[in-house]
Amino acid sequence: MGVVVPLDDARDPAAKLGPLVELVSADMGRVNRIILDKAGSNVELIPQLARHLIDSGGKRLRPMLTLAAAKMCGYAGDGHVLLASSVEFMHTATLLHDDVVDESALRRGKPTARLVWGNQASVLVGDFLLGQAFKMMVDVGSLKALRILANAAAVIAEGEVMQLSASKNMATTEDEYLAVIEAKTAALFSAAAEVGAAVCDRPQAEQAGLRSYGRNLGLAFQLVDDALDYSGEQARLGKSVGDDFREGKITLPVVLAYRRGSEDERTFWKRTLETAAIAEGDLEHAIALMQKHGSLADTIGRARHYGKIARDDLEIFPDSRHKSALMDVVEFCIGRAY
Amino acid sequence: MGVVVPLDDARDPAAKLGPLVELVSADMGRVNRIILDKAGSNVELIPQLARHLIDSGGKRLRPMLTLAAAKMCGYAGDGHVLLASSVEFMHTATLLHDDVVDESALRRGKPTARLVWGNQASVLVGDFLLGQAFKMMVDVGSLKALRILANAAAVIAEGEVMQLSASKNMATTEDEYLAVIEAKTAALFSAAAEVGAAVCDRPQAEQAGLRSYGRNLGLAFQLVDDALDYSGEQARLGKSVGDDFREGKITLPVVLAYRRGSEDERTFWKRTLETAAIAEGDLEHAIALMQKHGSLADTIGRARHYGKIARDDLEIFPDSRHKSALMDVVEFCIGRAY
Repeated sequence: MGVVVPLDDARDPAAKLGPLVELVSADMGRVNRIILDKAGSNVELIPQLARHLIDSGGKRLRPMLTLAAAKMCGYAGDGHVLLASSVEFMHTATLLHDDVVDESALRRGKPTARLVWGNQASVLVGDFLLGQAFKMMVDVGSLKALRILANAAAVIAEGEVMQLSASKNMATTEDEYLAVIEAKTAALFSAAAEVGAAVCDRPQAEQAGLRSYGRNLGLAFQLVDDALDYSGEQARLGKSVGDDFREGKITLPVVLAYRRGSEDERTFWKRTLETAAIAEGDLEHAIALMQKHGSLADTIGRARHYGKIARDDLEIFPDSRHKSALMDVVEFCIGRAY
Repeated sequence: MGVVVPLDDARDPAAKLGPLVELVSADMGRVNRIILDKAGSNVELIPQLARHLIDSGGKRLRPMLTLAAAKMCGYAGDGHVLLASSVEFMHTATLLHDDVVDESALRRGKPTARLVWGNQASVLVGDFLLGQAFKMMVDVGSLKALRILANAAAVIAEGEVMQLSASKNMATTEDEYLAVIEAKTAALFSAAAEVGAAVCDRPQAEQAGLRSYGRNLGLAFQLVDDALDYSGEQARLGKSVGDDFREGKITLPVVLAYRRGSEDERTFWKRTLETAAIAEGDLEHAIALMQKHGSLADTIGRARHYGKIARDDLEIFPDSRHKSALMDVVEFCIGRAY
């Protein structure tokens, strides 16, 4: 599983993930075995490259959402395990293609697959994993679940193109930023949670509740992620700081700092993010400007807003350990910011 | 439709495509409208880039196979039109990713999308089209058809990775070459034909017959394509000659010429294809070696072999105009070589 959760430390945000990890532990064991199996191929490069990502210690939050959502809805079959594996493969495929598109060098502190095996292999193995994901969905046999995940696949790609178009454009509004993260992140969180209800044919209201929970959780997750990219906390987690800055990504901390800034400050943002003329000390200056204008704190504030909606989305479900664990995931996502 | 077929010229291989084009003409009109519709998006870059490929005058052979196969099986519904559109989107997505992987500059005589909009957009719009393809398949609601096409998606990507690994390796055997084209080309031809039977729940023997027909037709098609890449005929069609040579692709004409060649000739092949040290006149010398060893003629001979199997695969079906048109497609694929 790769996630060590210090349950005795209430200040550690990871503790909030503990109940979920524990509840789905047996099912996640099955998901992990399926993932290794379906990433296999006689074409050696495929398992090598896929394993590089699979072993890299992601939290596997998305498949855990699928498992817990299905269980909260009283699901008794096996389909949720395959759907959870599909969700993780869709995510892995997206990461592979993202790293090519962003020309990233590091992912979770390790060299990206594209640096080790090249862009070409990363594109193609991503395609392979996406194909395997759809095969698993078909094996489950739920057209409802298939529709939700196929739709998410198209929306995610659309969001990535949107991000590419918005990249390096300081005129990006908060709404435009939201549209991007809604597509590139919230869509898969939303689909991951929704298929849990879809696979056990729960009433429309429950399916819609989980869809909305996943969407709002995903928005909160990405907002915190985008704040962490400019935070010292990130460095503590072994991740590099300022990746978005160097890639010219216009995230909410930047949008807010730019709008609230002086003319001189706006010139700074245009030089660094639009023309990518980044000099020594620019990242530190960017972070200082964000602190001056409270744009990191307000980004977390926006995340808290979506987190509240996610919690309310779950209220229609009767109390259960799964519901409580899914509530805690919201705290985990936001708590990472501290 | 974009295909002008001079029916009165029996020597023109395109005439052999005439009956198929005519039979599926109304349905292809619907396919073309769906393709334009589903390539639409509020993210401007997507329709721009997708239209570039869609308008580039491909023959749309694969969706025509789906339409004709369904009609030959007596299908009376609408699903075949959506499945045919899905097949074409899968193909278009593959082309977009292929051009990135191969670093191609031209496709059907036009600059590739990656040259106009960049590799990043090509990868992401390919992902979007694949997502749209799966959405359409889900709309048809046939799990049988979904399984066939999802499987093809994974196999195609696997084949592309295999080709990447085999690239620039002169030790490639004919069997290894066949495994690559079976995955990267024959799998989609096969799926395109097979879903025609699957969507109307025809007996297993008919579905298997169409699967095998598509597979063998696809092998013949790719063999001829690989021979044409070294042929003057290619130049007449407005395509460039020697693309595979410059990209270090080990296709059958090369495999045969290398095996049949002298030590000096093998040194030539290693220099040009393995180390990509290509000088003025090398392509002409490569073609001369192929002619000397009959490797182009024998590649067409192998194509004729698979073409015969494809024809026999159709024999179990009662005579009909659709069957006859599908038989003619075999002649068309092989006839392109002359």
